[in-house]
Amino acid sequence: MKLASFTIDNRPAWGLVTDTGVIDLSRPEVPDLKTALELGVHESLAREASGRPDTAPLATAHFLPVIPRPDKIVCIGHNYEEHRVETRRDKTANPSVFLRVASSQVGHAGPLVMPAESTQLDYEGEIALVIGKPGRRIPEASAWQHIAGYSAYNDASVRDWQYHTAQFTPGKNFAGTGAFGPWMVTRGDIADGEVLTLETRLNGQVMQRADTSQLIFPIPRLIAYLSTFLPLAPGDVIVTGTPGGVGAKRNPPVWMKPGDVVEVEVSQVGVLRNVVRAEL
Amino acid sequence: MKLASFTIDNRPAWGLVTDTGVIDLSRPEVPDLKTALELGVHESLAREASGRPDTAPLATAHFLPVIPRPDKIVCIGHNYEEHRVETRRDKTANPSVFLRVASSQVGHAGPLVMPAESTQLDYEGEIALVIGKPGRRIPEASAWQHIAGYSAYNDASVRDWQYHTAQFTPGKNFAGTGAFGPWMVTRGDIADGEVLTLETRLNGQVMQRADTSQLIFPIPRLIAYLSTFLPLAPGDVIVTGTPGGVGAKRNPPVWMKPGDVVEVEVSQVGVLRNVVRAEL
Repeated sequence: MKLASFTIDNRPAWGLVTDTGVIDLSRPEVPDLKTALELGVHESLAREASGRPDTAPLATAHFLPVIPRPDKIVCIGHNYEEHRVETRRDKTANPSVFLRVASSQVGHAGPLVMPAESTQLDYEGEIALVIGKPGRRIPEASAWQHIAGYSAYNDASVRDWQYHTAQFTPGKNFAGTGAFGPWMVTRGDIADGEVLTLETRLNGQVMQRADTSQLIFPIPRLIAYLSTFLPLAPGDVIVTGTPGGVGAKRNPPVWMKPGDVVEVEVSQVGVLRNVVRAEL
Repeated sequence: MKLASFTIDNRPAWGLVTDTGVIDLSRPEVPDLKTALELGVHESLAREASGRPDTAPLATAHFLPVIPRPDKIVCIGHNYEEHRVETRRDKTANPSVFLRVASSQVGHAGPLVMPAESTQLDYEGEIALVIGKPGRRIPEASAWQHIAGYSAYNDASVRDWQYHTAQFTPGKNFAGTGAFGPWMVTRGDIADGEVLTLETRLNGQVMQRADTSQLIFPIPRLIAYLSTFLPLAPGDVIVTGTPGGVGAKRNPPVWMKPGDVVEVEVSQVGVLRNVVRAEL
Protein backbone atom coordinates (compact mmCIF):
# COMPACT_ATOMS: atom_id res chain seq x y z
CA MET A 1 0.00 0.00 0.00
CA LYS A 2 0.95 3.62 -0.58
CA LEU A 3 0.92 6.05 2.37
CA ALA A 4 1.45 9.77 2.07
CA SER A 5 1.28 13.12 3.84
CA PHE A 6 -0.76 15.86 2.21
CA THR A 7 -3.03 18.78 2.96
CA ILE A 8 -6.82 18.77 2.81
CA ASP A 9 -8.21 22.32 2.73
CA ASN A 10 -4.83 23.56 3.96
CA ARG A 11 -4.97 21.20 6.97
CA PRO A 12 -2.05 18.76 7.21
CA ALA A 13 -3.19 15.15 6.98
CA TRP A 14 -1.95 11.70 6.08
CA GLY A 15 -3.49 8.67 4.54
CA LEU A 16 -3.79 6.06 1.87
CA VAL A 17 -3.11 6.74 -1.79
CA THR A 18 -5.45 4.91 -4.16
CA ASP A 19 -5.38 4.70 -7.96
CA THR A 20 -7.60 7.76 -8.13
CA GLY A 21 -7.00 9.85 -5.02
CA VAL A 22 -6.13 10.04 -1.36
CA ILE A 23 -8.12 8.87 1.64
CA ASP A 24 -7.60 10.94 4.78
CA LEU A 25 -6.71 8.74 7.75
CA SER A 26 -5.80 11.46 10.20
CA ARG A 27 -7.60 11.69 13.53
CA PRO A 28 -6.82 13.52 16.77
CA GLU A 29 -4.79 10.68 18.26
CA VAL A 30 -2.99 9.94 14.97
CA PRO A 31 -2.52 13.37 13.39
CA ASP A 32 0.37 12.46 11.12
CA LEU A 33 2.17 9.56 9.48
CA LYS A 34 5.08 9.74 11.91
CA THR A 35 2.69 9.23 14.82
CA ALA A 36 1.01 6.37 12.94
CA LEU A 37 4.43 4.73 12.55
CA GLU A 38 5.23 5.29 16.23
CA LEU A 39 1.95 3.67 17.23
CA GLY A 40 2.36 0.94 14.61
CA VAL A 41 -1.14 1.61 13.25
CA HIS A 42 -0.26 2.88 9.76
CA GLU A 43 -1.09 -0.38 8.00
CA SER A 44 -4.12 -1.38 10.01
CA LEU A 45 -5.77 2.03 9.60
CA ALA A 46 -5.01 1.95 5.87
CA ARG A 47 -6.47 -1.54 5.50
CA GLU A 48 -9.68 -0.54 7.26
CA ALA A 49 -10.04 2.40 4.87
CA SER A 50 -9.63 0.46 1.66
CA GLY A 51 -12.75 0.73 -0.47
CA ARG A 52 -13.82 4.01 1.10
CA PRO A 53 -14.35 6.91 -1.31
CA ASP A 54 -11.39 9.21 -1.95
CA THR A 55 -11.19 12.30 0.25
CA ALA A 56 -9.60 14.17 -2.66
CA PRO A 57 -8.76 13.20 -6.23
CA LEU A 58 -5.09 12.65 -7.09
CA ALA A 59 -5.09 15.59 -9.48
CA THR A 60 -5.82 18.09 -6.72
CA ALA A 61 -4.01 16.42 -3.84
CA HIS A 62 -1.33 18.66 -2.37
CA PHE A 63 1.50 16.39 -1.24
CA LEU A 64 3.77 17.18 1.67
CA PRO A 65 7.13 15.45 2.19
CA VAL A 66 6.24 11.82 3.06
CA ILE A 67 7.40 12.53 6.61
CA PRO A 68 7.28 16.31 6.95
CA ARG A 69 9.21 16.54 10.22
CA PRO A 70 11.35 13.47 10.80
CA ASP A 71 13.57 13.31 13.86
CA LYS A 72 16.46 12.66 11.49
CA ILE A 73 17.11 12.76 7.76
CA VAL A 74 20.31 10.81 7.25
CA CYS A 75 21.90 11.03 3.82
CA ILE A 76 24.59 8.79 2.37
CA GLY A 77 27.27 10.13 0.03
CA HIS A 78 29.13 8.31 -2.79
CA ASN A 79 27.27 5.04 -2.47
CA TYR A 80 27.36 4.07 -6.15
CA GLU A 81 30.72 3.38 -7.75
CA GLU A 82 30.14 5.55 -10.81
CA HIS A 83 29.35 8.54 -8.59
CA ARG A 84 32.30 7.82 -6.31
CA VAL A 85 34.61 7.85 -9.32
CA GLU A 86 33.12 11.00 -10.89
CA THR A 87 33.51 12.87 -7.59
CA ARG A 88 37.07 11.49 -7.15
CA ARG A 89 36.40 10.20 -3.66
CA ASP A 90 38.63 7.55 -2.12
CA LYS A 91 37.12 4.19 -1.30
CA THR A 92 36.23 4.08 2.39
CA ALA A 93 35.48 1.18 4.70
CA ASN A 94 32.35 2.93 5.96
CA PRO A 95 29.62 5.04 4.39
CA SER A 96 29.86 8.81 4.15
CA VAL A 97 27.06 10.33 6.22
CA PHE A 98 25.58 13.82 6.35
CA LEU A 99 22.33 15.22 7.71
CA ARG A 100 19.48 17.29 6.36
CA VAL A 101 17.09 19.31 8.50
CA ALA A 102 13.32 19.12 8.06
CA SER A 103 13.06 22.70 6.79
CA SER A 104 15.04 21.71 3.71
CA GLN A 105 12.28 19.36 2.51
CA VAL A 106 9.54 19.81 -0.07
CA GLY A 107 6.81 17.43 -1.22
CA HIS A 108 5.98 15.89 -4.57
CA ALA A 109 4.95 18.54 -7.12
CA GLY A 110 6.14 21.31 -4.80
CA PRO A 111 8.73 23.75 -6.08
CA LEU A 112 12.39 22.83 -5.84
CA VAL A 113 13.84 26.15 -4.78
CA MET A 114 16.90 27.68 -6.45
CA PRO A 115 18.16 30.15 -3.87
CA ALA A 116 19.19 33.69 -4.79
CA GLU A 117 22.76 32.92 -3.66
CA SER A 118 23.63 30.34 -6.30
CA THR A 119 23.07 29.15 -9.86
CA GLN A 120 24.61 25.74 -9.12
CA LEU A 121 21.50 23.77 -8.15
CA ASP A 122 22.03 20.10 -9.00
CA TYR A 123 19.76 17.03 -8.88
CA GLU A 124 20.55 13.82 -6.99
CA GLY A 125 17.95 11.10 -7.44
CA GLU A 126 17.91 8.61 -4.56
CA ILE A 127 15.94 5.84 -2.90
CA ALA A 128 14.69 6.74 0.58
CA LEU A 129 13.90 4.35 3.43
CA VAL A 130 11.40 5.23 6.12
CA ILE A 131 12.06 3.60 9.48
CA GLY A 132 9.16 1.92 11.25
CA LYS A 133 10.55 -0.06 14.14
CA PRO A 134 13.00 1.73 16.44
CA GLY A 135 16.39 0.25 17.16
CA ARG A 136 20.00 0.71 18.13
CA ARG A 137 22.89 -1.47 16.94
CA ILE A 138 20.62 -3.35 14.57
CA PRO A 139 22.27 -6.47 13.11
CA GLU A 140 22.31 -6.62 9.31
CA ALA A 141 20.31 -9.85 9.43
CA SER A 142 17.31 -8.13 11.02
CA ALA A 143 17.72 -4.71 9.35
CA TRP A 144 14.81 -5.16 6.93
CA GLN A 145 12.38 -5.52 9.83
CA HIS A 146 13.04 -1.89 10.77
CA ILE A 147 11.93 -0.53 7.40
CA ALA A 148 8.35 0.73 7.17
CA GLY A 149 8.55 1.67 3.52
CA TYR A 150 10.37 2.96 0.46
CA SER A 151 10.16 6.27 -1.32
CA ALA A 152 11.98 8.54 -3.79
CA TYR A 153 14.15 11.51 -2.81
CA ASN A 154 15.80 14.29 -4.74
CA ASP A 155 18.73 15.32 -2.57
CA ALA A 156 19.17 18.51 -4.61
CA SER A 157 22.44 20.23 -3.83
CA VAL A 158 23.71 23.78 -4.03
CA ARG A 159 27.19 22.78 -5.20
CA ASP A 160 29.20 25.93 -4.53
CA TRP A 161 27.85 26.05 -0.96
CA GLN A 162 28.44 22.31 -0.55
CA TYR A 163 32.14 22.92 -1.19
CA HIS A 164 32.63 25.99 1.02
CA THR A 165 34.48 23.61 3.37
CA ALA A 166 34.94 19.84 3.59
CA GLN A 167 31.58 19.52 5.40
CA PHE A 168 28.62 19.30 2.98
CA THR A 169 25.97 20.78 5.32
CA PRO A 170 25.35 24.22 3.73
CA GLY A 171 24.88 22.89 0.19
CA LYS A 172 22.52 20.18 1.42
CA ASN A 173 20.25 22.26 3.62
CA PHE A 174 18.90 25.22 1.71
CA ALA A 175 15.17 25.48 2.33
CA GLY A 176 13.10 23.69 -0.32
CA THR A 177 15.87 21.58 -1.87
CA GLY A 178 15.13 18.09 -0.53
CA ALA A 179 12.18 16.63 -2.44
CA PHE A 180 10.61 13.57 -0.81
CA GLY A 181 7.71 11.58 -2.22
CA PRO A 182 5.20 11.22 -3.62
CA TRP A 183 4.42 8.53 -1.06
CA MET A 184 6.01 5.56 0.62
CA VAL A 185 5.25 2.01 -0.48
CA THR A 186 5.06 -0.19 2.58
CA ARG A 187 7.55 -2.97 3.10
CA GLY A 188 4.93 -5.68 2.62
CA ASP A 189 4.70 -4.78 -1.09
CA ILE A 190 8.42 -5.09 -1.85
CA ALA A 191 10.37 -8.22 -0.96
CA ASP A 192 13.36 -7.67 1.32
CA GLY A 193 16.42 -7.30 -0.88
CA GLU A 194 14.41 -7.06 -4.10
CA VAL A 195 16.36 -5.01 -6.62
CA LEU A 196 14.87 -1.53 -7.13
CA THR A 197 15.79 0.63 -10.09
CA LEU A 198 16.36 4.35 -9.81
CA GLU A 199 16.21 6.86 -12.63
CA THR A 200 16.52 10.65 -12.64
CA ARG A 201 15.18 12.64 -15.60
CA LEU A 202 15.72 16.34 -16.28
CA ASN A 203 13.17 17.76 -18.72
CA GLY A 204 12.51 14.20 -19.85
CA GLN A 205 16.15 13.28 -20.48
CA VAL A 206 17.61 10.43 -18.43
CA MET A 207 20.51 11.79 -16.35
CA GLN A 208 21.06 9.00 -13.81
CA ARG A 209 20.15 5.34 -13.81
CA ALA A 210 21.17 2.57 -11.42
CA ASP A 211 19.73 -0.14 -9.26
CA THR A 212 20.15 -1.22 -5.67
CA SER A 213 22.38 -4.16 -6.64
CA GLN A 214 25.02 -1.50 -7.35
CA LEU A 215 25.00 0.09 -3.89
CA ILE A 216 28.50 0.08 -2.40
CA PHE A 217 26.97 -0.18 1.08
CA PRO A 218 23.71 -2.14 0.74
CA ILE A 219 20.62 -1.29 2.74
CA PRO A 220 21.21 -3.72 5.67
CA ARG A 221 24.76 -2.43 6.06
CA LEU A 222 23.54 1.18 6.14
CA ILE A 223 20.99 0.41 8.85
CA ALA A 224 23.54 -1.52 10.91
CA TYR A 225 26.17 1.22 10.62
CA LEU A 226 23.90 4.19 11.26
CA SER A 227 22.12 2.56 14.18
CA THR A 228 25.46 2.02 15.90
CA PHE A 229 25.56 5.71 16.80
CA LEU A 230 22.00 6.88 16.07
CA PRO A 231 19.07 5.31 17.87
CA LEU A 232 16.74 4.97 14.87
CA ALA A 233 13.18 6.09 15.50
CA PRO A 234 9.89 5.68 13.63
CA GLY A 235 9.71 8.21 10.81
CA ASP A 236 13.47 8.60 10.47
CA VAL A 237 14.53 8.82 6.85
CA ILE A 238 17.63 7.26 5.30
CA VAL A 239 18.50 8.61 1.86
CA THR A 240 20.67 5.92 0.35
CA GLY A 241 22.92 7.77 -2.10
CA THR A 242 22.90 8.97 -5.69
CA PRO A 243 24.21 7.24 -8.83
CA GLY A 244 26.69 8.69 -11.32
CA GLY A 245 25.58 11.38 -13.71
CA VAL A 246 25.10 14.41 -11.48
CA GLY A 247 25.09 17.74 -13.31
CA ALA A 248 28.18 19.12 -11.59
CA LYS A 249 30.42 16.42 -13.04
CA ARG A 250 29.26 16.73 -16.66
CA ASN A 251 31.29 18.59 -19.23
CA PRO A 252 30.08 21.25 -19.44
CA PRO A 253 28.26 21.13 -16.09
CA VAL A 254 24.47 20.96 -16.21
CA TRP A 255 22.78 23.16 -13.61
CA MET A 256 19.04 23.14 -13.04
CA LYS A 257 17.29 26.39 -13.85
CA PRO A 258 13.87 27.86 -13.14
CA GLY A 259 11.16 26.02 -15.05
CA ASP A 260 13.11 22.77 -15.32
CA VAL A 261 11.15 19.60 -14.55
CA VAL A 262 13.04 16.97 -12.58
CA GLU A 263 11.73 13.48 -11.97
CA VAL A 264 13.06 10.70 -9.76
CA GLU A 265 11.53 7.32 -10.52
CA VAL A 266 11.94 4.31 -8.25
CA SER A 267 10.58 1.01 -9.50
CA GLN A 268 7.62 -0.31 -7.47
CA VAL A 269 7.30 3.14 -5.86
CA GLY A 270 6.54 5.77 -8.51
CA VAL A 271 7.68 9.12 -9.84
CA LEU A 272 8.64 12.10 -7.70
CA ARG A 273 8.23 15.17 -9.87
CA ASN A 274 9.22 18.75 -9.08
CA VAL A 275 9.60 21.98 -10.99
CA VAL A 276 12.54 24.26 -10.26
CA ARG A 277 11.57 27.74 -9.16
CA ALA A 278 13.75 30.74 -8.46
CA GLU A 279 13.28 31.98 -4.94
CA LEU A 280 10.80 34.86 -4.77
CA MET B 1 18.14 35.48 34.21
CA LYS B 2 18.93 31.78 33.95
CA LEU B 3 16.44 29.47 32.24
CA ALA B 4 16.73 25.69 32.14
CA SER B 5 15.00 22.43 31.30
CA PHE B 6 14.81 19.79 34.02
CA THR B 7 12.63 17.07 35.42
CA ILE B 8 10.42 17.34 38.49
CA ASP B 9 9.36 13.90 39.77
CA ASN B 10 10.40 12.48 36.38
CA ARG B 11 8.11 14.92 34.57
CA PRO B 12 9.90 17.16 32.01
CA ALA B 13 9.63 20.84 32.93
CA TRP B 14 11.35 24.15 32.39
CA GLY B 15 11.81 27.23 34.46
CA LEU B 16 13.90 29.78 36.25
CA VAL B 17 17.16 28.93 38.00
CA THR B 18 17.69 30.86 41.25
CA ASP B 19 20.74 30.94 43.53
CA THR B 20 19.28 28.03 45.49
CA GLY B 21 17.08 26.00 43.17
CA VAL B 22 14.73 25.88 40.23
CA ILE B 23 11.22 27.29 39.88
CA ASP B 24 8.94 25.28 37.61
CA LEU B 25 7.31 27.52 34.98
CA SER B 26 5.77 24.81 32.85
CA ARG B 27 2.03 24.82 32.20
CA PRO B 28 -0.15 23.04 29.65
CA GLU B 29 0.12 25.77 27.03
CA VAL B 30 3.87 26.27 27.64
CA PRO B 31 5.15 22.77 28.37
CA ASP B 32 8.79 23.39 27.48
CA LEU B 33 11.38 26.11 26.98
CA LYS B 34 11.26 25.81 23.19
CA THR B 35 7.54 26.58 23.24
CA ALA B 36 8.17 29.49 25.63
CA LEU B 37 10.71 30.87 23.14
CA GLU B 38 8.28 30.36 20.24
CA LEU B 39 5.58 32.25 22.14
CA GLY B 40 8.07 34.85 23.34
CA VAL B 41 6.93 34.40 26.96
CA HIS B 42 10.12 32.94 28.46
CA GLU B 43 11.22 36.20 30.08
CA SER B 44 7.84 37.48 31.19
CA LEU B 45 6.92 34.19 32.86
CA ALA B 46 10.31 34.09 34.58
CA ARG B 47 9.94 37.66 35.80
CA GLU B 48 6.51 36.94 37.28
CA ALA B 49 7.96 33.96 39.15
CA SER B 50 10.87 35.77 40.75
CA GLY B 51 10.58 35.66 44.53
CA ARG B 52 8.47 32.53 44.51
CA PRO B 53 9.82 29.57 46.53
CA ASP B 54 11.98 27.07 44.68
CA THR B 55 10.18 24.04 43.28
CA ALA B 56 13.32 21.98 43.91
CA PRO B 57 16.71 22.77 45.42
CA LEU B 58 19.69 23.01 43.04
CA ALA B 59 21.36 20.01 44.62
CA THR B 60 18.57 17.65 43.61
CA ALA B 61 17.54 19.29 40.33
CA HIS B 62 17.87 16.91 37.40
CA PHE B 63 18.89 19.00 34.42
CA LEU B 64 17.95 18.14 30.85
CA PRO B 65 19.74 19.64 27.83
CA VAL B 66 18.76 23.34 27.85
CA ILE B 67 16.65 22.67 24.76
CA PRO B 68 16.03 18.91 24.79
CA ARG B 69 14.63 18.66 21.25
CA PRO B 70 15.73 21.60 19.11
CA ASP B 71 14.70 21.70 15.46
CA LYS B 72 18.41 22.07 14.66
CA ILE B 73 21.71 21.79 16.44
CA VAL B 74 24.23 23.49 14.19
CA CYS B 75 27.89 23.03 15.08
CA ILE B 76 30.84 25.02 13.79
CA GLY B 77 34.24 23.42 13.19
CA HIS B 78 37.71 25.00 13.40
CA ASN B 79 36.56 28.40 14.55
CA TYR B 80 39.57 29.23 16.73
CA GLU B 81 42.96 29.64 15.06
CA GLU B 82 44.84 27.40 17.49
CA HIS B 83 42.39 24.55 16.84
CA ARG B 84 42.47 25.14 13.08
CA VAL B 85 46.26 24.85 13.14
CA GLU B 86 46.33 21.76 15.40
CA THR B 87 43.85 19.97 13.11
CA ARG B 88 45.81 21.10 10.01
CA ARG B 89 42.75 22.57 8.33
CA ASP B 90 43.10 25.11 5.51
CA LYS B 91 41.77 28.59 6.08
CA THR B 92 38.34 28.87 4.50
CA ALA B 93 36.29 31.90 3.54
CA ASN B 94 33.23 30.43 5.27
CA PRO B 95 32.61 28.48 8.47
CA SER B 96 32.70 24.69 8.57
CA VAL B 97 29.24 23.43 9.53
CA PHE B 98 27.97 20.07 10.72
CA LEU B 99 24.81 18.96 12.47
CA ARG B 100 23.95 17.06 15.61
CA VAL B 101 20.66 15.30 16.23
CA ALA B 102 18.68 15.74 19.45
CA SER B 103 19.26 12.14 20.57
CA SER B 104 22.98 12.89 20.89
CA GLN B 105 22.37 15.37 23.72
CA VAL B 106 22.67 15.04 27.48
CA GLY B 107 22.07 17.59 30.24
CA HIS B 108 24.30 19.05 32.95
CA ALA B 109 25.46 16.39 35.41
CA GLY B 110 24.19 13.64 33.14
CA PRO B 111 26.61 10.96 31.99
CA LEU B 112 28.74 11.64 28.93
CA VAL B 113 28.57 8.25 27.26
CA MET B 114 31.66 6.46 25.95
CA PRO B 115 30.25 3.97 23.44
CA ALA B 116 31.34 0.36 23.34
CA GLU B 117 32.71 0.90 19.82
CA SER B 118 35.50 3.32 20.68
CA THR B 119 38.03 4.42 23.27
CA GLN B 120 38.63 7.75 21.49
CA LEU B 121 36.10 9.96 23.25
CA ASP B 122 37.36 13.55 23.24
CA TYR B 123 36.08 16.77 24.85
CA GLU B 124 35.33 19.99 22.95
CA GLY B 125 34.27 22.88 25.16
CA GLU B 126 32.17 25.45 23.31
CA ILE B 127 29.85 28.42 23.74
CA ALA B 128 26.27 27.73 22.59
CA LEU B 129 23.73 30.25 21.35
CA VAL B 130 20.01 29.64 21.67
CA ILE B 131 17.90 31.33 19.01
CA GLY B 132 14.85 33.29 20.13
CA LYS B 133 13.57 35.27 17.17
CA PRO B 134 13.16 33.38 13.91
CA GLY B 135 14.79 34.64 10.74
CA ARG B 136 16.25 33.95 7.35
CA ARG B 137 19.10 35.87 5.73
CA ILE B 138 19.69 37.82 8.91
CA PRO B 139 22.08 40.77 8.43
CA GLU B 140 25.09 40.78 10.74
CA ALA B 141 23.98 44.15 12.11
CA SER B 142 20.77 42.71 13.54
CA ALA B 143 22.07 39.22 14.38
CA TRP B 144 22.21 39.78 18.14
CA GLN B 145 18.47 40.42 18.24
CA HIS B 146 17.88 36.79 17.25
CA ILE B 147 19.74 35.39 20.26
CA ALA B 148 17.62 34.38 23.26
CA GLY B 149 20.55 33.32 25.41
CA TYR B 150 23.98 31.80 25.92
CA SER B 151 25.01 28.44 27.31
CA ALA B 152 27.91 25.98 27.49
CA TYR B 153 28.26 22.90 25.29
CA ASN B 154 30.60 19.93 25.29
CA ASP B 155 30.63 18.77 21.68
CA ALA B 156 32.27 15.49 22.71
CA SER B 157 33.57 13.57 19.72
CA VAL B 158 34.25 9.94 18.97
CA ARG B 159 37.37 10.64 16.95
CA ASP B 160 37.86 7.38 15.06
CA TRP B 161 34.24 7.47 13.90
CA GLN B 162 34.54 11.18 13.05
CA TYR B 163 37.28 10.29 10.58
CA HIS B 164 35.64 7.26 8.93
CA THR B 165 35.10 9.57 5.94
CA ALA B 166 35.48 13.30 5.30
CA GLN B 167 32.01 13.92 6.82
CA PHE B 168 32.10 14.28 10.62
CA THR B 169 28.53 13.06 11.29
CA PRO B 170 29.15 9.63 12.89
CA GLY B 171 31.73 10.88 15.41
CA LYS B 172 29.50 13.78 16.40
CA ASN B 173 26.22 11.95 16.88
CA PHE B 174 26.68 9.03 19.24
CA ALA B 175 23.86 9.06 21.79
CA GLY B 176 24.80 10.91 24.98
CA THR B 177 27.86 12.77 23.69
CA GLY B 178 26.61 16.35 23.33
CA ALA B 179 26.40 17.94 26.78
CA PHE B 180 24.37 21.16 26.89
CA GLY B 181 23.81 23.29 29.97
CA PRO B 182 23.42 23.78 32.79
CA TRP B 183 21.09 26.62 31.72
CA MET B 184 20.98 29.53 29.32
CA VAL B 185 21.61 33.07 30.47
CA THR B 186 19.25 35.39 28.65
CA ARG B 187 20.59 38.01 26.27
CA GLY B 188 19.54 40.87 28.54
CA ASP B 189 22.24 39.86 31.04
CA ILE B 190 25.16 39.88 28.58
CA ALA B 191 25.89 42.89 26.40
CA ASP B 192 25.90 42.20 22.66
CA GLY B 193 29.48 41.55 21.64
CA GLU B 194 30.76 41.35 25.21
CA VAL B 195 33.79 39.08 25.33
CA LEU B 196 33.02 35.70 26.93
CA THR B 197 35.75 33.38 28.12
CA LEU B 198 35.62 29.63 27.64
CA GLU B 199 37.56 27.04 29.58
CA THR B 200 37.51 23.24 29.48
CA ARG B 201 38.83 21.26 32.43
CA LEU B 202 39.45 17.52 32.58
CA ASN B 203 39.68 16.19 36.13
CA GLY B 204 40.43 19.75 37.23
CA GLN B 205 43.22 20.38 34.73
CA VAL B 206 42.73 23.19 32.21
CA MET B 207 42.79 21.69 28.71
CA GLN B 208 41.32 24.51 26.60
CA ARG B 209 41.04 28.24 27.18
CA ALA B 210 40.00 31.00 24.80
CA ASP B 211 37.59 33.89 24.50
CA THR B 212 35.12 35.04 21.90
CA SER B 213 37.46 37.79 20.63
CA GLN B 214 39.45 34.92 19.11
CA LEU B 215 36.62 33.46 17.04
CA ILE B 216 37.61 33.27 13.36
CA PHE B 217 33.96 33.75 12.41
CA PRO B 218 32.35 35.93 15.10
CA ILE B 219 28.81 35.36 16.31
CA PRO B 220 27.05 37.84 13.95
CA ARG B 221 28.84 36.33 10.97
CA LEU B 222 27.77 32.80 12.01
CA ILE B 223 24.14 33.86 12.30
CA ALA B 224 24.23 35.67 8.95
CA TYR B 225 25.89 32.75 7.17
CA LEU B 226 23.77 29.96 8.67
CA SER B 227 20.51 31.82 8.18
CA THR B 228 21.26 32.18 4.48
CA PHE B 229 20.36 28.53 3.98
CA LEU B 230 18.65 27.58 7.27
CA PRO B 231 15.53 29.42 8.39
CA LEU B 232 16.47 29.83 12.06
CA ALA B 233 13.69 28.98 14.49
CA PRO B 234 13.15 29.56 18.23
CA GLY B 235 15.08 26.96 20.20
CA ASP B 236 17.64 26.30 17.48
CA VAL B 237 21.11 25.87 18.89
CA ILE B 238 24.35 27.15 17.37
CA VAL B 239 27.50 25.63 18.87
CA THR B 240 30.21 28.10 18.01
CA GLY B 241 33.40 26.02 17.84
CA THR B 242 36.11 24.70 20.13
CA PRO B 243 39.52 26.22 20.98
CA GLY B 244 42.89 24.52 20.63
CA GLY B 245 43.88 21.83 23.08
CA VAL B 246 41.62 18.92 22.19
CA GLY B 247 42.82 15.54 23.45
CA ALA B 248 43.27 14.00 20.00
CA LYS B 249 45.97 16.48 19.04
CA ARG B 250 48.08 16.13 22.19
CA ASN B 251 51.21 14.06 22.26
CA PRO B 252 50.43 11.47 23.44
CA PRO B 253 46.70 11.84 22.78
CA VAL B 254 44.47 12.27 25.84
CA TRP B 255 41.23 10.29 25.63
CA MET B 256 38.48 10.59 28.19
CA LYS B 257 37.79 7.45 30.19
CA PRO B 258 35.03 6.25 32.49
CA GLY B 259 34.99 8.23 35.72
CA ASP B 260 36.62 11.33 34.24
CA VAL B 261 35.05 14.65 35.20
CA VAL B 262 34.85 17.20 32.41
CA GLU B 263 33.81 20.80 32.93
CA VAL B 264 33.10 23.54 30.42
CA GLU B 265 32.99 27.00 31.97
CA VAL B 266 31.67 30.04 30.12
CA SER B 267 32.05 33.39 31.87
CA GLN B 268 28.72 34.97 32.86
CA VAL B 269 27.02 31.62 32.24
CA GLY B 270 28.43 28.97 34.58
CA VAL B 271 29.93 25.51 34.62
CA LEU B 272 28.65 22.53 32.64
CA ARG B 273 29.88 19.43 34.43
CA ASN B 274 29.62 15.82 33.28
CA VAL B 275 31.13 12.50 34.28
CA VAL B 276 32.20 10.05 31.61
CA ARG B 277 30.49 6.68 31.81
CA ALA B 278 31.09 3.56 29.77
CA GLU B 279 27.95 2.46 28.00
CA LEU B 280 26.07 -0.20 29.91
